[in-house]
This record gives sequence, C-alpha cells and structure tokens, in this order.
Amino acid sequence: MTSRPVNIKATLDSFSDLWSPRIVAQFNDYDVRVAKFHGEYIWHAHHDTDELFIVISGRLVIHLREADAERSVTLEQGDTYVVPRGTEHKPVADDEAHILMVEPTGTLTVGDTHEEVPDYVDATTGHRVV
Amino acid sequence: MTSRPVNIKATLDSFSDLWSPRIVAQFNDYDVRVAKFHGEYIWHAHHDTDELFIVISGRLVIHLREADAERSVTLEQGDTYVVPRGTEHKPVADDEAHILMVEPTGTLTVGDTHEEVPDYVDATTGHRVV
Repeated sequence: MTSRPVNIKATLDSFSDLWSPRIVAQFNDYDVRVAKFHGEYIWHAHHDTDELFIVISGRLVIHLREADAERSVTLEQGDTYVVPRGTEHKPVADDEAHILMVEPTGTLTVGDTHEEVPDYVDATTGHRVV
Repeated sequence: MTSRPVNIKATLDSFSDLWSPRIVAQFNDYDVRVAKFHGEYIWHAHHDTDELFIVISGRLVIHLREADAERSVTLEQGDTYVVPRGTEHKPVADDEAHILMVEPTGTLTVGDTHEEVPDYVDATTGHRVV
C-alpha cells in the first residue's frame, strides 16, 4: 500500500457512495480515508482517539456537544479541524462535500457510542482502494 | 489548537521560508505540518516512524534507497504517499511545491540520520502557527 502514490481526486472520482470512506494510505497504525458527505450524519463519539478532518472540497458543518453545551464549527475547503476524543459530534453537509480523515486503523466510522445507524450510513472501518 | 479550523492555504500564504514546516493541527500524538519545498532536500531517514506526504500543489519527487537499490517516485497534486520507517529518502522539487505531512509530534525534519545539514534547511520539529 505504501509503494506507489494514490491520488485523492482520482479515488473520489471512483465511487459515489455517501458516508463510506475509502482508505488511500496507511502509515504507522493510522489510516488516511476519503469520503463523500451529503446530508446529516449521526451523533457519535470516539472514546479513545481524536479525529482529524480536512475538507478537500465543499463545506462541512460539525456539530459538537461539549461540557453540556452544543456548538458547531463550519469548515471550508482546505480547512483542518480536530474533534477531540470523547466529544460527541455530528457532521452535516448541505451540499456534497469531500472529506479526508486521519484516524487509527480499525476506527469505526460510527464511533464507540452513537445514535441508531440508519440505512444510508456505512458502519465500517473503511474500504481499501489499493 | 483543536478548537477552531486552520486553513491550509491561508497558512501557506503566511510564510515564505522553504523546508520549514508549520504545524496546522495536532491530533493524538501526531502533527499535521505544511511546508514549501523548492530545490533539493537532504538524504535522511526516520528510524521509528513512517512519514505521510500529501501534495497540496506542485510536483514532488522523492528519491528512495531501498534494499541497496535507488528509485524515485513522482507525486502530483493530490497524491498521497508514505515513506516507510527506516527508508532513506530525499525530496526534490524543481519548482516550488506545497506539501502536507503527518508524523508523530517531535519528529525532526532531518530525521534520525542524515547528510550534513546545509544552511537553507531548517532542522526543526515544526513551527506552531496557532
């Protein structure tokens, strides 16, 4: 997997599924995943890991529940943002957005605790593309 | 550092130094760094960590010494590539290229073993921008 370059845009062009990350690279015990977001994801939290988001294209709103207060951050193209471990969050993209995430290999997309998972959400640790 | 989005392009626009990474995000015990490459870097190796490269703009050639053979990979915009731990490598950018890297916090740009460090190379663990 580490022997040749993998292009982010070409990978995004190769699938249309929403909320279903593809793994474009692995380093140490981490995955680099790209996914298409459109609509509302579910509230969920990763207990043991922070989650890095980078917006490849589009706009992403991440709702956060912090210390009993709810707020949201809006990420534009090229923005980086880290959701701290343990923080409940809910990504929302009014229009299709393409997102890169970095997290430990094996991390479930829906986290360790989450709302009921609807049919349109792929509960996965990511799909290999190479 | 994790409380607000940090934009990659705005960060790159904020400095002109070559080979001198800025830290745009931290998650778990990892840094996300962006840097401007132009010209030839030095041969070096990180003994204990893989190194993730993503090309934000431009083109990057990474020369690699693997099992007594030398080869190079050419990375275009949007390409991801991982240099495995212990592999001697030498990045070269004929024109200015903007590169994102992810590696453990504290990782030295020049690695654990390296050629003599010329004046134009900033031997650093990265500079915080936020």
